[in-house]
Amino acid sequence: MNKKPLILVTNDDGITAPGIRTLIEVMNGIGDVVVVAPDNPQSGMGHAITVNTTLRCNPVTIDDGPQLEYSCSGTPADCVKMAVNEILNKKPDLCVSGINHGANSSINVIYSGTMSAAVEAGIEGVPAIGFSLLDYNWDANFEASKTYVKTIVESVLTNSLPEGVVLNVNIPNLKSEEIKGVKVCRQALGNWKEDFDKRVSPQGEDYYWLTGKFVNLDKGQDTDIWALENGFISVVPTQFDMTAHHFIQKLNTWNL
Amino acid sequence: MNKKPLILVTNDDGITAPGIRTLIEVMNGIGDVVVVAPDNPQSGMGHAITVNTTLRCNPVTIDDGPQLEYSCSGTPADCVKMAVNEILNKKPDLCVSGINHGANSSINVIYSGTMSAAVEAGIEGVPAIGFSLLDYNWDANFEASKTYVKTIVESVLTNSLPEGVVLNVNIPNLKSEEIKGVKVCRQALGNWKEDFDKRVSPQGEDYYWLTGKFVNLDKGQDTDIWALENGFISVVPTQFDMTAHHFIQKLNTWNL
Repeated sequence: MNKKPLILVTNDDGITAPGIRTLIEVMNGIGDVVVVAPDNPQSGMGHAITVNTTLRCNPVTIDDGPQLEYSCSGTPADCVKMAVNEILNKKPDLCVSGINHGANSSINVIYSGTMSAAVEAGIEGVPAIGFSLLDYNWDANFEASKTYVKTIVESVLTNSLPEGVVLNVNIPNLKSEEIKGVKVCRQALGNWKEDFDKRVSPQGEDYYWLTGKFVNLDKGQDTDIWALENGFISVVPTQFDMTAHHFIQKLNTWNL
Repeated sequence: MNKKPLILVTNDDGITAPGIRTLIEVMNGIGDVVVVAPDNPQSGMGHAITVNTTLRCNPVTIDDGPQLEYSCSGTPADCVKMAVNEILNKKPDLCVSGINHGANSSINVIYSGTMSAAVEAGIEGVPAIGFSLLDYNWDANFEASKTYVKTIVESVLTNSLPEGVVLNVNIPNLKSEEIKGVKVCRQALGNWKEDFDKRVSPQGEDYYWLTGKFVNLDKGQDTDIWALENGFISVVPTQFDMTAHHFIQKLNTWNL
Protein backbone atom coordinates (compact mmCIF):
# COMPACT_ATOMS: atom_id res chain seq x y z
CA MET A 1 0.00 0.00 0.00
CA ASN A 2 1.31 3.44 -0.90
CA LYS A 3 1.85 5.84 1.96
CA LYS A 4 -0.33 8.92 1.85
CA PRO A 5 1.51 12.03 0.68
CA LEU A 6 2.23 14.79 3.20
CA ILE A 7 0.60 17.97 1.89
CA LEU A 8 1.35 21.48 3.16
CA VAL A 9 -1.52 23.93 2.64
CA THR A 10 -1.19 27.69 2.83
CA ASN A 11 -2.65 30.85 1.28
CA ASP A 12 -2.57 34.64 1.40
CA ASP A 13 -6.18 35.48 2.31
CA GLY A 14 -5.72 34.15 5.85
CA ILE A 15 -6.35 30.80 7.51
CA THR A 16 -10.12 31.30 7.91
CA ALA A 17 -10.81 32.25 4.27
CA PRO A 18 -13.36 30.05 2.47
CA GLY A 19 -10.82 29.42 -0.32
CA ILE A 20 -8.30 27.68 1.94
CA ARG A 21 -11.07 25.80 3.76
CA THR A 22 -12.13 24.35 0.38
CA LEU A 23 -8.53 23.48 -0.48
CA ILE A 24 -8.06 21.71 2.88
CA GLU A 25 -11.26 19.72 2.31
CA VAL A 26 -10.07 18.50 -1.09
CA MET A 27 -6.54 17.75 0.17
CA ASN A 28 -7.92 15.70 3.10
CA GLY A 29 -9.18 13.29 0.43
CA ILE A 30 -5.68 12.90 -1.03
CA GLY A 31 -3.12 12.98 1.76
CA ASP A 32 -2.09 13.90 5.29
CA VAL A 33 -2.62 17.61 5.57
CA VAL A 34 -0.74 20.23 7.59
CA VAL A 35 -1.90 23.82 7.28
CA VAL A 36 0.44 26.74 8.05
CA ALA A 37 -1.27 29.92 6.96
CA PRO A 38 -1.32 33.63 7.78
CA ASP A 39 -3.45 34.82 10.69
CA ASN A 40 -4.56 37.84 8.62
CA PRO A 41 -4.99 38.76 4.94
CA GLN A 42 -1.70 39.13 3.03
CA SER A 43 -2.89 39.99 -0.47
CA GLY A 44 -0.39 41.87 -2.59
CA MET A 45 2.49 40.87 -0.33
CA GLY A 46 4.52 39.49 -3.25
CA HIS A 47 7.54 37.58 -2.05
CA ALA A 48 7.92 39.62 1.14
CA ILE A 49 9.59 37.93 4.12
CA THR A 50 9.76 39.10 7.73
CA VAL A 51 13.31 40.11 8.56
CA ASN A 52 12.92 43.07 10.89
CA THR A 53 10.36 41.78 13.34
CA THR A 54 9.38 38.58 15.11
CA LEU A 55 6.98 35.85 14.04
CA ARG A 56 4.38 33.93 15.96
CA CYS A 57 3.06 30.55 14.91
CA ASN A 58 0.58 28.62 17.01
CA PRO A 59 -1.58 25.50 16.62
CA VAL A 60 -5.27 26.24 16.03
CA THR A 61 -8.44 24.24 15.47
CA ILE A 62 -10.85 25.81 13.02
CA ASP A 63 -13.05 22.92 11.93
CA ASP A 64 -13.35 19.21 12.73
CA GLY A 65 -11.28 17.89 9.82
CA PRO A 66 -8.26 15.58 10.33
CA GLN A 67 -5.71 18.25 9.32
CA LEU A 68 -3.21 19.84 11.70
CA GLU A 69 -3.30 23.63 11.56
CA TYR A 70 -0.97 26.46 12.54
CA SER A 71 -1.80 30.13 12.37
CA CYS A 72 1.23 32.31 11.63
CA SER A 73 1.75 36.06 11.95
CA GLY A 74 3.97 36.32 8.86
CA THR A 75 3.67 36.53 5.10
CA PRO A 76 2.82 33.55 2.87
CA ALA A 77 6.54 33.03 2.14
CA ASP A 78 7.24 33.10 5.90
CA CYS A 79 4.56 30.43 6.44
CA VAL A 80 6.26 28.08 4.00
CA LYS A 81 9.70 28.67 5.53
CA MET A 82 8.23 28.12 9.00
CA ALA A 83 6.47 24.92 7.94
CA VAL A 84 9.39 23.35 6.11
CA ASN A 85 12.12 24.34 8.57
CA GLU A 86 10.38 24.38 11.95
CA ILE A 87 7.00 22.64 12.07
CA LEU A 88 7.25 19.60 9.80
CA ASN A 89 9.77 16.92 10.66
CA LYS A 90 10.03 15.83 7.03
CA LYS A 91 9.89 17.64 3.72
CA PRO A 92 6.30 17.67 2.41
CA ASP A 93 5.52 15.84 -0.82
CA LEU A 94 3.54 18.81 -2.07
CA CYS A 95 2.64 22.38 -1.15
CA VAL A 96 -0.64 23.87 -2.33
CA SER A 97 -1.53 27.53 -1.89
CA GLY A 98 -4.96 29.11 -2.17
CA ILE A 99 -7.60 28.86 -3.31
CA ASN A 100 -7.09 32.59 -3.75
CA HIS A 101 -10.12 34.85 -3.85
CA GLY A 102 -9.23 36.64 -7.11
CA ALA A 103 -7.08 36.20 -10.22
CA ASN A 104 -3.33 35.67 -10.24
CA SER A 105 -2.90 35.48 -14.01
CA SER A 106 -0.45 37.42 -16.17
CA ILE A 107 1.85 39.84 -14.29
CA ASN A 108 -0.19 39.37 -11.09
CA VAL A 109 1.96 36.30 -10.42
CA ILE A 110 4.61 38.75 -9.23
CA TYR A 111 2.40 40.65 -6.74
CA SER A 112 0.65 37.54 -5.49
CA GLY A 113 1.08 36.24 -1.97
CA THR A 114 -0.59 32.99 -3.07
CA MET A 115 2.00 32.39 -5.75
CA SER A 116 4.89 33.57 -3.57
CA ALA A 117 4.08 30.74 -1.16
CA ALA A 118 4.14 28.24 -4.04
CA VAL A 119 7.37 29.74 -5.38
CA GLU A 120 8.95 29.65 -1.90
CA ALA A 121 8.08 25.95 -1.66
CA GLY A 122 9.65 25.43 -5.08
CA ILE A 123 12.81 27.21 -3.94
CA GLU A 124 12.97 24.81 -0.98
CA GLY A 125 12.64 21.83 -3.33
CA VAL A 126 8.97 21.07 -2.62
CA PRO A 127 6.64 20.54 -5.63
CA ALA A 128 4.04 23.29 -5.47
CA ILE A 129 0.85 24.66 -6.98
CA GLY A 130 -0.94 27.97 -6.47
CA PHE A 131 -4.71 27.99 -7.10
CA SER A 132 -6.82 31.10 -7.71
CA LEU A 133 -10.50 31.61 -8.52
CA LEU A 134 -11.51 34.66 -10.51
CA ASP A 135 -13.85 35.98 -7.82
CA TYR A 136 -12.64 38.51 -5.26
CA ASN A 137 -15.65 38.06 -3.00
CA TRP A 138 -15.27 36.45 0.41
CA ASP A 139 -18.36 34.32 -0.31
CA ALA A 140 -17.08 33.19 -3.73
CA ASN A 141 -18.39 29.81 -4.85
CA PHE A 142 -15.56 27.23 -4.88
CA GLU A 143 -17.77 24.23 -5.78
CA ALA A 144 -16.76 23.99 -9.44
CA SER A 145 -13.08 24.31 -8.49
CA LYS A 146 -12.98 21.15 -6.38
CA THR A 147 -12.85 18.52 -9.13
CA TYR A 148 -10.21 20.40 -11.10
CA VAL A 149 -8.06 21.04 -8.04
CA LYS A 150 -8.16 17.33 -7.25
CA THR A 151 -7.23 16.30 -10.81
CA ILE A 152 -4.36 18.76 -11.04
CA VAL A 153 -2.94 17.80 -7.64
CA GLU A 154 -3.13 14.09 -8.47
CA SER A 155 -1.41 14.74 -11.82
CA VAL A 156 1.45 16.54 -10.09
CA LEU A 157 1.83 13.72 -7.54
CA THR A 158 1.84 11.14 -10.35
CA ASN A 159 3.97 12.91 -12.96
CA SER A 160 6.29 15.02 -10.76
CA LEU A 161 7.31 18.57 -11.57
CA PRO A 162 10.88 19.26 -12.66
CA GLU A 163 13.07 21.14 -10.17
CA GLY A 164 12.62 24.87 -10.36
CA VAL A 165 9.07 24.75 -11.74
CA VAL A 166 5.80 25.34 -9.86
CA LEU A 167 2.29 25.65 -11.30
CA ASN A 168 0.11 28.76 -11.38
CA VAL A 169 -3.51 27.63 -11.78
CA ASN A 170 -6.34 30.12 -12.36
CA ILE A 171 -9.97 29.07 -12.49
CA PRO A 172 -12.66 31.10 -14.26
CA ASN A 173 -15.70 32.06 -12.21
CA LEU A 174 -18.09 29.72 -14.01
CA LYS A 175 -20.37 26.84 -13.21
CA SER A 176 -18.86 23.35 -13.60
CA GLU A 177 -20.73 22.67 -16.83
CA GLU A 178 -19.53 25.96 -18.32
CA ILE A 179 -15.81 25.25 -17.76
CA LYS A 180 -14.37 24.05 -21.06
CA GLY A 181 -11.33 22.25 -19.63
CA VAL A 182 -7.73 22.92 -18.68
CA LYS A 183 -5.20 24.76 -20.86
CA VAL A 184 -1.43 24.86 -20.41
CA CYS A 185 -0.46 28.49 -21.04
CA ARG A 186 2.25 31.08 -20.84
CA GLN A 187 1.98 34.20 -18.66
CA ALA A 188 0.28 36.96 -20.70
CA LEU A 189 2.14 40.25 -21.11
CA GLY A 190 0.18 42.86 -19.21
CA ASN A 191 0.41 45.48 -16.51
CA TRP A 192 -1.66 47.72 -14.28
CA LYS A 193 -2.56 51.23 -15.26
CA GLU A 194 -2.55 52.85 -11.86
CA ASP A 195 -4.87 55.60 -10.85
CA PHE A 196 -3.94 57.01 -7.46
CA ASP A 197 -7.01 58.24 -5.63
CA LYS A 198 -5.73 61.36 -3.83
CA ARG A 199 -7.62 62.48 -0.72
CA VAL A 200 -7.17 64.88 2.15
CA SER A 201 -7.23 63.68 5.76
CA PRO A 202 -9.25 65.45 8.49
CA GLN A 203 -5.88 66.90 9.53
CA GLY A 204 -5.45 68.46 6.08
CA GLU A 205 -2.74 66.07 4.87
CA ASP A 206 -2.72 64.46 1.41
CA TYR A 207 -2.91 60.70 1.19
CA TYR A 208 -3.52 58.16 -1.57
CA TRP A 209 -5.31 54.93 -2.28
CA LEU A 210 -3.68 52.74 -4.92
CA THR A 211 -6.30 51.79 -7.49
CA GLY A 212 -5.90 50.69 -11.05
CA LYS A 213 -7.03 48.65 -13.99
CA PHE A 214 -5.29 45.62 -15.45
CA VAL A 215 -4.37 46.03 -19.10
CA ASN A 216 -3.72 42.96 -21.23
CA LEU A 217 -1.08 43.86 -23.82
CA ASP A 218 -0.92 40.37 -25.29
CA LYS A 219 -3.06 39.13 -28.20
CA GLY A 220 -1.67 35.57 -28.01
CA GLN A 221 -4.13 32.70 -27.77
CA ASP A 222 -1.56 30.70 -25.78
CA THR A 223 -1.79 33.00 -22.74
CA ASP A 224 -3.49 32.53 -19.38
CA ILE A 225 -5.67 35.60 -19.98
CA TRP A 226 -6.96 34.19 -23.28
CA ALA A 227 -7.71 30.82 -21.69
CA LEU A 228 -9.63 32.38 -18.79
CA GLU A 229 -11.60 34.72 -21.06
CA ASN A 230 -12.58 31.73 -23.13
CA GLY A 231 -13.83 29.53 -20.31
CA PHE A 232 -10.72 27.44 -19.65
CA ILE A 233 -8.72 26.87 -16.48
CA SER A 234 -5.19 28.17 -17.09
CA VAL A 235 -2.09 26.33 -15.91
CA VAL A 236 1.18 28.26 -16.27
CA PRO A 237 4.43 26.48 -15.39
CA THR A 238 6.29 29.13 -13.42
CA GLN A 239 9.98 29.38 -12.62
CA PHE A 240 12.08 31.40 -10.21
CA ASP A 241 15.19 31.59 -12.34
CA MET A 242 14.50 35.15 -13.46
CA THR A 243 17.57 35.32 -15.73
CA ALA A 244 16.72 36.70 -19.18
CA HIS A 245 18.90 34.04 -20.82
CA HIS A 246 18.02 35.27 -24.31
CA PHE A 247 19.74 38.61 -23.62
CA ILE A 248 23.04 37.33 -22.19
CA GLN A 249 24.78 37.02 -25.55
CA LYS A 250 23.82 40.54 -26.65
CA LEU A 251 24.71 42.05 -23.28
CA ASN A 252 28.18 40.56 -23.66
CA THR A 253 28.73 42.80 -26.70
CA TRP A 254 28.37 45.94 -24.54
CA ASN A 255 31.50 47.57 -23.13
CA LEU A 256 30.72 47.25 -19.44
CA MET B 1 22.35 69.42 -27.93
CA ASN B 2 20.89 66.26 -26.44
CA LYS B 3 18.35 66.72 -23.67
CA LYS B 4 19.39 65.30 -20.34
CA PRO B 5 17.67 62.02 -19.48
CA LEU B 6 15.06 61.99 -16.73
CA ILE B 7 16.21 59.50 -14.09
CA LEU B 8 14.00 58.10 -11.33
CA VAL B 9 15.94 56.97 -8.25
CA THR B 10 14.56 54.69 -5.54
CA ASN B 11 15.72 52.02 -3.11
CA ASP B 12 14.57 49.77 -0.29
CA ASP B 13 16.80 50.87 2.59
CA GLY B 14 14.97 54.19 2.88
CA ILE B 15 15.52 57.65 1.44
CA THR B 16 18.24 58.66 3.92
CA ALA B 17 20.43 55.56 3.42
CA PRO B 18 24.02 56.25 2.32
CA GLY B 19 23.56 53.87 -0.64
CA ILE B 20 20.81 55.95 -2.26
CA ARG B 21 22.63 59.21 -1.46
CA THR B 22 25.63 57.86 -3.43
CA LEU B 23 23.38 56.79 -6.30
CA ILE B 24 21.75 60.25 -6.42
CA GLU B 25 25.18 61.92 -6.49
CA VAL B 26 26.28 59.81 -9.48
CA MET B 27 22.95 60.27 -11.30
CA ASN B 28 23.12 64.07 -10.87
CA GLY B 29 26.17 63.92 -13.15
CA ILE B 30 24.18 62.12 -15.87
CA GLY B 31 20.62 63.46 -15.93
CA ASP B 32 17.74 65.25 -14.28
CA VAL B 33 17.02 63.32 -11.12
CA VAL B 34 13.75 62.70 -9.28
CA VAL B 35 13.89 60.57 -6.14
CA VAL B 36 10.81 58.73 -4.86
CA ALA B 37 11.90 56.42 -2.08
CA PRO B 38 10.52 54.78 1.06
CA ASP B 39 10.45 56.77 4.28
CA ASN B 40 11.61 53.68 6.21
CA PRO B 41 13.61 50.49 5.53
CA GLN B 42 11.82 47.99 3.29
CA SER B 43 14.35 45.17 3.04
CA GLY B 44 12.90 41.77 2.23
CA MET B 45 9.66 43.29 0.96
CA GLY B 46 9.88 41.42 -2.34
CA HIS B 47 7.31 42.70 -4.80
CA ALA B 48 4.81 43.71 -2.12
CA ILE B 49 2.37 46.50 -2.94
CA THR B 50 0.06 48.42 -0.62
CA VAL B 51 -3.53 47.47 -1.35
CA ASN B 52 -5.22 47.50 2.06
CA THR B 53 -4.05 50.79 3.46
CA THR B 54 -3.29 54.33 2.36
CA LEU B 55 -0.05 55.84 1.11
CA ARG B 56 1.60 59.15 1.85
CA CYS B 57 4.11 60.78 -0.44
CA ASN B 58 5.58 64.20 0.30
CA PRO B 59 8.37 66.41 -1.07
CA VAL B 60 11.47 66.50 1.12
CA THR B 61 14.87 68.15 1.06
CA ILE B 62 17.69 66.02 2.41
CA ASP B 63 20.81 67.58 0.93
CA ASP B 64 21.64 70.54 -1.31
CA GLY B 65 21.81 68.61 -4.62
CA PRO B 66 19.71 69.61 -7.66
CA GLN B 67 17.45 66.54 -7.45
CA LEU B 68 13.75 66.66 -6.53
CA GLU B 69 12.87 64.25 -3.73
CA TYR B 70 9.72 62.61 -2.41
CA SER B 71 9.48 60.45 0.68
CA CYS B 72 6.83 57.76 0.43
CA SER B 73 5.23 55.55 3.07
CA GLY B 74 4.94 52.52 0.79
CA THR B 75 7.06 49.67 -0.51
CA PRO B 76 9.70 50.06 -3.23
CA ALA B 77 7.19 48.86 -5.85
CA ASP B 78 4.66 51.42 -4.55
CA CYS B 79 7.29 54.16 -4.92
CA VAL B 80 7.79 53.35 -8.60
CA LYS B 81 4.04 53.20 -9.26
CA MET B 82 3.59 56.51 -7.43
CA ALA B 83 6.44 58.15 -9.35
CA VAL B 84 5.42 56.99 -12.81
CA ASN B 85 1.67 57.48 -12.43
CA GLU B 86 1.33 60.42 -10.05
CA ILE B 87 4.49 62.48 -9.55
CA LEU B 88 6.28 62.60 -12.91
CA ASN B 89 4.51 64.20 -15.83
CA LYS B 90 6.45 62.13 -18.34
CA LYS B 91 7.79 58.59 -18.34
CA PRO B 92 11.38 58.55 -17.02
CA ASP B 93 14.17 57.49 -19.37
CA LEU B 94 15.62 55.26 -16.67
CA CYS B 95 14.93 53.99 -13.17
CA VAL B 96 17.81 53.08 -10.88
CA SER B 97 17.31 51.41 -7.51
CA GLY B 98 19.84 51.13 -4.69
CA ILE B 99 22.64 51.14 -4.00
CA ASN B 100 21.45 48.40 -1.69
CA HIS B 101 23.34 47.73 1.51
CA GLY B 102 23.83 43.98 0.99
CA ALA B 103 23.79 41.36 -1.78
CA ASN B 104 20.90 40.68 -4.12
CA SER B 105 22.54 37.90 -6.10
CA SER B 106 21.12 34.44 -6.85
CA ILE B 107 17.64 33.74 -5.43
CA ASN B 108 17.79 36.95 -3.36
CA VAL B 109 16.50 38.75 -6.45
CA ILE B 110 13.08 37.42 -5.49
CA TYR B 111 13.09 38.69 -1.88
CA SER B 112 14.70 42.00 -2.74
CA GLY B 113 12.89 45.30 -2.42
CA THR B 114 15.69 46.91 -4.45
CA MET B 115 15.11 44.60 -7.37
CA SER B 116 11.32 44.72 -7.06
CA ALA B 117 11.51 48.47 -7.71
CA ALA B 118 13.61 47.85 -10.82
CA VAL B 119 11.27 45.07 -11.95
CA GLU B 120 8.21 47.29 -11.35
CA ALA B 121 9.79 49.97 -13.53
CA GLY B 122 10.42 47.33 -16.20
CA ILE B 123 6.78 46.25 -16.02
CA GLU B 124 5.77 49.87 -16.60
CA GLY B 125 8.04 50.05 -19.67
CA VAL B 126 10.87 52.01 -18.03
CA PRO B 127 14.47 50.74 -18.52
CA ALA B 128 15.76 49.86 -15.06
CA ILE B 129 18.77 48.74 -13.05
CA GLY B 130 19.09 47.58 -9.45
CA PHE B 131 22.47 48.09 -7.76
CA SER B 132 23.65 46.31 -4.63
CA LEU B 133 26.94 46.39 -2.71
CA LEU B 134 27.96 43.28 -0.77
CA ASP B 135 28.14 45.10 2.56
CA TYR B 136 25.15 45.12 4.91
CA ASN B 137 26.56 47.90 7.10
CA TRP B 138 24.92 51.31 7.16
CA ASP B 139 28.38 52.90 6.87
CA ALA B 140 29.39 50.71 3.91
CA ASN B 141 31.96 52.31 1.60
CA PHE B 142 30.36 53.10 -1.78
CA GLU B 143 33.42 54.88 -3.27
CA ALA B 144 34.55 52.03 -5.52
CA SER B 145 30.97 51.55 -6.78
CA LYS B 146 30.66 55.03 -8.27
CA THR B 147 32.68 54.58 -11.47
CA TYR B 148 31.03 51.26 -12.27
CA VAL B 149 27.53 52.56 -11.60
CA LYS B 150 28.21 55.46 -13.97
CA THR B 151 29.57 53.20 -16.73
CA ILE B 152 26.68 50.74 -16.48
CA VAL B 153 24.03 53.49 -16.47
CA GLU B 154 25.60 55.20 -19.48
CA SER B 155 25.76 51.87 -21.33
CA VAL B 156 22.06 51.28 -20.71
CA LEU B 157 21.19 54.79 -21.91
CA THR B 158 23.33 54.29 -25.04
CA ASN B 159 22.47 50.70 -25.95
CA SER B 160 18.87 50.40 -24.64
CA LEU B 161 17.50 47.35 -22.86
CA PRO B 162 14.97 45.16 -24.65
CA GLU B 163 11.40 45.27 -23.32
CA GLY B 164 10.86 42.96 -20.40
CA VAL B 165 14.49 42.96 -19.25
CA VAL B 166 16.03 44.87 -16.32
CA LEU B 167 19.55 44.55 -14.90
CA ASN B 168 20.53 43.16 -11.51
CA VAL B 169 23.99 44.51 -10.66
CA ASN B 170 25.92 43.32 -7.61
CA ILE B 171 29.23 44.85 -6.56
CA PRO B 172 31.79 42.99 -4.43
CA ASN B 173 32.95 44.73 -1.27
CA LEU B 174 36.45 45.47 -2.54
CA LYS B 175 38.66 48.45 -3.17
CA SER B 176 38.58 49.90 -6.70
CA GLU B 177 41.94 48.42 -7.64
CA GLU B 178 40.86 44.96 -6.44
CA ILE B 179 37.73 44.83 -8.64
CA LYS B 180 38.58 42.72 -11.70
CA GLY B 181 35.84 44.09 -13.98
CA VAL B 182 32.23 43.42 -14.92
CA LYS B 183 30.82 39.99 -15.81
CA VAL B 184 27.48 39.26 -17.48
CA CYS B 185 26.04 36.31 -15.55
CA ARG B 186 23.04 34.15 -14.94
CA GLN B 187 21.30 33.90 -11.56
CA ALA B 188 22.99 31.16 -9.50
CA LEU B 189 20.80 28.33 -8.20
CA GLY B 190 20.72 28.67 -4.43
CA ASN B 191 18.45 29.00 -1.44
CA TRP B 192 18.38 29.84 2.24
CA LYS B 193 18.69 27.20 4.90
CA GLU B 194 16.49 28.74 7.56
CA ASP B 195 17.13 28.39 11.22
CA PHE B 196 14.25 29.82 13.24
CA ASP B 197 15.48 31.24 16.53
CA LYS B 198 12.67 30.34 18.94
CA ARG B 199 12.30 32.46 22.07
CA VAL B 200 9.80 33.00 24.85
CA SER B 201 8.32 36.45 25.52
CA PRO B 202 8.09 37.94 29.03
CA GLN B 203 4.42 36.92 28.81
CA GLY B 204 5.41 33.28 28.30
CA GLU B 205 4.50 33.10 24.61
CA ASP B 206 6.67 31.52 21.93
CA TYR B 207 7.96 33.69 19.13
CA TYR B 208 10.56 33.37 16.39
CA TRP B 209 13.24 35.30 14.60
CA LEU B 210 13.86 34.24 11.01
CA THR B 211 17.57 33.61 10.57
CA GLY B 212 19.38 31.56 8.01
CA LYS B 213 22.35 30.93 5.82
CA PHE B 214 22.49 31.23 2.05
CA VAL B 215 23.52 28.02 0.31
CA ASN B 216 24.93 28.15 -3.23
CA LEU B 217 23.85 24.96 -5.02
CA ASP B 218 25.42 25.97 -8.33
CA LYS B 219 29.00 25.15 -9.39
CA GLY B 220 28.72 27.09 -12.67
CA GLN B 221 31.37 29.70 -13.44
CA ASP B 222 28.80 31.73 -15.39
CA THR B 223 26.80 32.63 -12.27
CA ASP B 224 26.58 35.86 -10.29
CA ILE B 225 27.83 34.12 -7.15
CA TRP B 226 30.96 32.87 -8.92
CA ALA B 227 31.66 36.34 -10.37
CA LEU B 228 31.31 38.03 -6.98
CA GLU B 229 33.44 35.44 -5.19
CA ASN B 230 36.13 36.01 -7.80
CA GLY B 231 36.27 39.79 -7.58
CA PHE B 232 33.97 40.73 -10.45
CA ILE B 233 30.86 42.89 -10.55
CA SER B 234 27.95 40.69 -11.67
CA VAL B 235 25.31 41.89 -14.13
CA VAL B 236 22.32 39.55 -14.54
CA PRO B 237 19.70 40.44 -17.16
CA THR B 238 16.45 39.77 -15.29
CA GLN B 239 12.97 39.22 -16.65
CA PHE B 240 9.48 39.20 -15.20
CA ASP B 241 7.99 36.69 -17.58
CA MET B 242 8.16 33.86 -15.06
CA THR B 243 6.79 31.24 -17.48
CA ALA B 244 8.89 28.07 -17.51
CA HIS B 245 8.67 27.91 -21.31
CA HIS B 246 10.87 24.79 -21.43
CA PHE B 247 8.22 22.80 -19.54
CA ILE B 248 5.15 23.76 -21.59
CA GLN B 249 5.54 20.99 -24.14
CA LYS B 250 5.95 18.28 -21.51
CA LEU B 251 3.08 19.62 -19.41
CA ASN B 252 0.85 19.32 -22.46
CA THR B 253 1.37 15.53 -22.39
CA TRP B 254 -0.28 15.28 -18.94
CA ASN B 255 -3.99 14.51 -18.74
CA LEU B 256 -5.18 17.64 -16.99
